[in-house]
Amino acid sequence: MSERSSKARKLKPTSPPSIDGPLPSSAATFIVPHMARKYSFFKKTLVAVLFLFALYALLSNFLSTANISSFSSSGDSNLVFVSRESSSALYAALPASTSPVRIYMYDLPRKFTYGVVEHHYRAREATVPPSDAELKYPGHQHMAEWYLFWDLNRPDVDRVGSSVVRVSDPDEADLFYVPFFSSLSLIVNQGRPPSTALSYVDEEVQEELVAWLEDQQYWRRNGGRDHVIIAQDPNALYRVVDKFRNAALLVSDFGRLRPEQASLVKDIILPYSHRISTYNGDVGVQNRKTLLFFMGNRFRKEGGKIRDFLFQILENEQDVIMKHGAQSRESRRAASQGMHTSKFCINPAGDTPSACRLFDAIVSLCVPVIVSDNIELPFEDLIDYRKIAVFVDTTNALKPGFLISLLRATSEERLLEYQKELKKVKRYFEYGESNGTVNEIWRQVSQKLPLIKLMINRDKRIIKRDLNGPDCTCLCTNKTGVITTL
Amino acid sequence: MSERSSKARKLKPTSPPSIDGPLPSSAATFIVPHMARKYSFFKKTLVAVLFLFALYALLSNFLSTANISSFSSSGDSNLVFVSRESSSALYAALPASTSPVRIYMYDLPRKFTYGVVEHHYRAREATVPPSDAELKYPGHQHMAEWYLFWDLNRPDVDRVGSSVVRVSDPDEADLFYVPFFSSLSLIVNQGRPPSTALSYVDEEVQEELVAWLEDQQYWRRNGGRDHVIIAQDPNALYRVVDKFRNAALLVSDFGRLRPEQASLVKDIILPYSHRISTYNGDVGVQNRKTLLFFMGNRFRKEGGKIRDFLFQILENEQDVIMKHGAQSRESRRAASQGMHTSKFCINPAGDTPSACRLFDAIVSLCVPVIVSDNIELPFEDLIDYRKIAVFVDTTNALKPGFLISLLRATSEERLLEYQKELKKVKRYFEYGESNGTVNEIWRQVSQKLPLIKLMINRDKRIIKRDLNGPDCTCLCTNKTGVITTL
Repeated sequence: MSERSSKARKLKPTSPPSIDGPLPSSAATFIVPHMARKYSFFKKTLVAVLFLFALYALLSNFLSTANISSFSSSGDSNLVFVSRESSSALYAALPASTSPVRIYMYDLPRKFTYGVVEHHYRAREATVPPSDAELKYPGHQHMAEWYLFWDLNRPDVDRVGSSVVRVSDPDEADLFYVPFFSSLSLIVNQGRPPSTALSYVDEEVQEELVAWLEDQQYWRRNGGRDHVIIAQDPNALYRVVDKFRNAALLVSDFGRLRPEQASLVKDIILPYSHRISTYNGDVGVQNRKTLLFFMGNRFRKEGGKIRDFLFQILENEQDVIMKHGAQSRESRRAASQGMHTSKFCINPAGDTPSACRLFDAIVSLCVPVIVSDNIELPFEDLIDYRKIAVFVDTTNALKPGFLISLLRATSEERLLEYQKELKKVKRYFEYGESNGTVNEIWRQVSQKLPLIKLMINRDKRIIKRDLNGPDCTCLCTNKTGVITTL
Repeated sequence: MSERSSKARKLKPTSPPSIDGPLPSSAATFIVPHMARKYSFFKKTLVAVLFLFALYALLSNFLSTANISSFSSSGDSNLVFVSRESSSALYAALPASTSPVRIYMYDLPRKFTYGVVEHHYRAREATVPPSDAELKYPGHQHMAEWYLFWDLNRPDVDRVGSSVVRVSDPDEADLFYVPFFSSLSLIVNQGRPPSTALSYVDEEVQEELVAWLEDQQYWRRNGGRDHVIIAQDPNALYRVVDKFRNAALLVSDFGRLRPEQASLVKDIILPYSHRISTYNGDVGVQNRKTLLFFMGNRFRKEGGKIRDFLFQILENEQDVIMKHGAQSRESRRAASQGMHTSKFCINPAGDTPSACRLFDAIVSLCVPVIVSDNIELPFEDLIDYRKIAVFVDTTNALKPGFLISLLRATSEERLLEYQKELKKVKRYFEYGESNGTVNEIWRQVSQKLPLIKLMINRDKRIIKRDLNGPDCTCLCTNKTGVITTL
């Protein structure tokens, strides 16, 4: 991998505490001068013992630093600087669940990674595309695929604190990552005139990925159960996703997926990459004069039909901004401005339940008002979304006056509480932050491992039996649901 | 709790390596005698520096030992010897998923714990029952409830390496453990003449537990989702288990539970406590002349009807021992003897799919032959049971000659492989071992936490919507099943 530095790295052990200034007398006068001769042997022994102690201190410090700063060997054998044996010493003293999960990233044929970026480039620019190292992944809300690929290609030393370590030997791996840029592949030809002769066909590349994977022994071994595949755009991989139903899918929602293809138990909900600039100011309502803000496509299919109805109800309300606008740099700038100066930001469903705009609202400290009954949310084991967002059921949201009077009645104090909570969780939605979205996605992935392993072992010994339906294990809720969380 | 020692404990830091025999010359001659005067100041400084280093070595060793040996405060404030703050330093350097799970054990009214033991005692002995501290929990295969209670009552220092730490403040808890002796409660009156006036009615105690729990704010808060309840006997808690369907259940199988009450995703499969003595010898077949051994009840209900058929097919085969025998000390001795001297031990289903005898076979290094199509197995994320047991589907197992010729054809080499694997995993089935079943159960419990938290957060914000059935998230297998794993 071109971005992977191949130079060997050296471990710098943590120094013992430096001693500045005069020595404490209790230590300095430990051997009193006039007793020197008499205690010559004692002294020598003492010095030697202390020396060994010091050596021990340095050594044990060195080892524990080494253990903590590198959990395992890197993906490249040149880059190993602490062996798995030495790192396992730390883990031996910890509960068994604490070992980091070992992930193997497939070295996919170029067409599935940089090749997709190149085709996207070629479809838009007249110039010759630059080399892989200089090819830029175009920014869009489905950039998780790029960030995860980039992260696993980083040297181990930059990945300290991640829940997964990359291994170079597939035999050592707990999980396998398939870094196909499936969301970018979907839009390579987007915006081209339909008559253009297409040199890139997403569906074909999807089929080629299936063929390539089915050729891999590690895929076949467990029917893909221990594989992690990203399909962040709800339409990504749509033609072949059924073949990946056993895998842990990284998705934005389950809008296009059937229950036997994806579930909260098996898969991971990703946040979209926010497209507007982060609000770095403090909490407060003084500079947020607008009560409710929306900017985006007024007309969507399926669940997104609600948008037009919401426009009709809300667009003439005072202190409310409802703007129809397509994706563009200009509209992103206007949306940033609007979200940074509004108290609430409404997030209606789009074609699927997931709310790309939700993450723009979060990083703007603009309290999200979610009107999307079937939405699934990222990192929900960690984040209690009632603390950062308002949920309103569709039926009531469409009753004239309901939503707006609810929001108007919200006290400044309550608003500040929401904003404070938003500030706390903001980092989970920053793909670029060192302890941000990427680390959290890997943590979510690593949490799936016990159930993946269980199902793999169980599948192999499960006995032929007569069942009425598929053999499923479920987690159900009997909740009748709330109307609003405000 | 009576068994909880209330005396304060002292931490004994790990000693630095002791130095015996002559000092290595490189260290001992570090300061050469004739240079003593000239380097007097240097020496003093050196001694002082080394002394400080030594102090640092001891101290850092002490601290890291303390961190590793006690993750958190104990349930009793007297017993705290390392604060949560200092222990969190270690975890800060590790991935977020590595913090131990904090569990709160309810201080249940006596009738749900020692009270059950006392009633069981009263039903059998004419004497006055001893004090709680001396009351012995009667040994039986459902002893997990005792071991888990006993474990959480141990001082923290004895629980090093566990995946859960006990907390005394329910507000700090991730999970709540309900230590009702539900399996013992079920059999308090077992064996009594039906005419006896009963002073103990299991069903009533079950109802009382429900009433007691429903009175607890922490139960009501999340509808019991973050509660862990043990019901190891398949009939334990049978009257009220539906009220506990949200909780993480510790069970032996799903034989008496409906899919909406229990699942592999939500619950944990426990091994039975083995009743026969562990085989401590080495692997080998020389002293195992019997090909296949079974001793137990020939006649059972439901899935257990297979037993009588197996007897008919197998009892006249050479080198096969099929003995009908009820539970008794004498029959346990005979079973030990039989399992320690047999190559294979057959484990047919009983009234429910779980195989109590399986764990006797494992600790006997007698390769289990499992004939129970719907069996679920403990710790299956960790243990690939195909490596330690043979699975045969019921239909084929009942074909005359099928099973026996399969076993006779097994090479000595293959048998030794099974035995070696059995030896490796044996500790997971030893409740009494320090890193045995109990620790593994808690590890399994701790692995459930992310999904429990996710469901708790999700339940609270989920919007009223029209669904055709319950709102379930499932993990399905499309496996058609195998006939045998041998």
